[in-house]
Amino acid sequence: MQTISVNTSKRCEFVDITREVNLLIKKSGQMSGTCVVFCPHTTAGLTINENADPAVKADIISHLAKLVPSSESFTHTEGNSDAHIKGSFLGSCLNIIIDEGQLVLGTWQAIYFCEFDGPRKRQVHIKIASD
Amino acid sequence: MQTISVNTSKRCEFVDITREVNLLIKKSGQMSGTCVVFCPHTTAGLTINENADPAVKADIISHLAKLVPSSESFTHTEGNSDAHIKGSFLGSCLNIIIDEGQLVLGTWQAIYFCEFDGPRKRQVHIKIASD
Amino acid sequence: MQTISVNTSKRCEFVDITREVNLLIKKSGQMSGTCVVFCPHTTAGLTINENADPAVKADIISHLAKLVPSSESFTHTEGNSDAHIKGSFLGSCLNIIIDEGQLVLGTWQAIYFCEFDGPRKRQVHIKIASD
Repeated sequence: MQTISVNTSKRCEFVDITREVNLLIKKSGQMSGTCVVFCPHTTAGLTINENADPAVKADIISHLAKLVPSSESFTHTEGNSDAHIKGSFLGSCLNIIIDEGQLVLGTWQAIYFCEFDGPRKRQVHIKIASD
Repeated sequence: MQTISVNTSKRCEFVDITREVNLLIKKSGQMSGTCVVFCPHTTAGLTINENADPAVKADIISHLAKLVPSSESFTHTEGNSDAHIKGSFLGSCLNIIIDEGQLVLGTWQAIYFCEFDGPRKRQVHIKIASD
Repeated sequence: MQTISVNTSKRCEFVDITREVNLLIKKSGQMSGTCVVFCPHTTAGLTINENADPAVKADIISHLAKLVPSSESFTHTEGNSDAHIKGSFLGSCLNIIIDEGQLVLGTWQAIYFCEFDGPRKRQVHIKIASD
């Protein structure tokens, strides 16, 4: 298992970690297998989505804010229940196929760490499994 | 890694791919392990849900349309932000256990490719991992 | 593959199964690898979220009820379409890294079986994969 660090600068922010994950696969020398990407935080998540137009991630963030408003009346007293809910909607784990020594992603796909209660210093765990 | 093709005929449509995935497992001869199912598209997703009454997938599609209306004002200029958001809500990857040479699914479960910006010709990647 | 039983006592309820999953890993003697956790039911799901304040799971359940009201008019005649939709939002499968003989979870993370159409007797499948 390896761990990468992610620094976020806003309360809600998607950080593209595709390059870091591919670098770990390259270093491992693994040509074929699978890769688990895991978020160990409960007010953040992971998703795979558009890597080209940054408007897409902005639209996901703003629409999530409409569906799960931080101003809503929640019982959890820390005031970040919206972040916990958004984290569960997107999920904490991804499993991506490795082929020819790199992640098999579609042309327009990037892996995003999804911060919902930043800014913070966060971690993402990576496990590369052989065939 | 193997790839199956999925043709969709509507903008939003769930296509049951359980049979195709099980066929690949049978051909591989793998009796026990896990199977990653991966969607390489950013305006589509994957989910596991009811295989019997088609009204369930219709209800999921129509409720997603209420929660993420395509008519909403988004910043992404291609006009399909709703499809990107729905894709992230359902997710791009599944990991299913293989036992006795086939997928371990509940009685009422099917694997669905979830089209949100069709009709299109799509792909789904399958990786069968041994124990 | 191993299976654990989960008994739920309400229609919607999150049951912490972290301890049971870690126990299976300990029994297996597996020190390093990955663990697939799979829900074979279509009106339930799995998520990883806060293990400390029970208000967080209550907030997730109540907010899901707002976004997907059971009173909504659905076409599926069994009257539990809301449960199917919530199940697909959270998802049916998790993949968690194993290191030093246990699940690699964040300090505040627990694995929850998410019942949306209980009370029922349910099952969760666990597959421990070596490196």
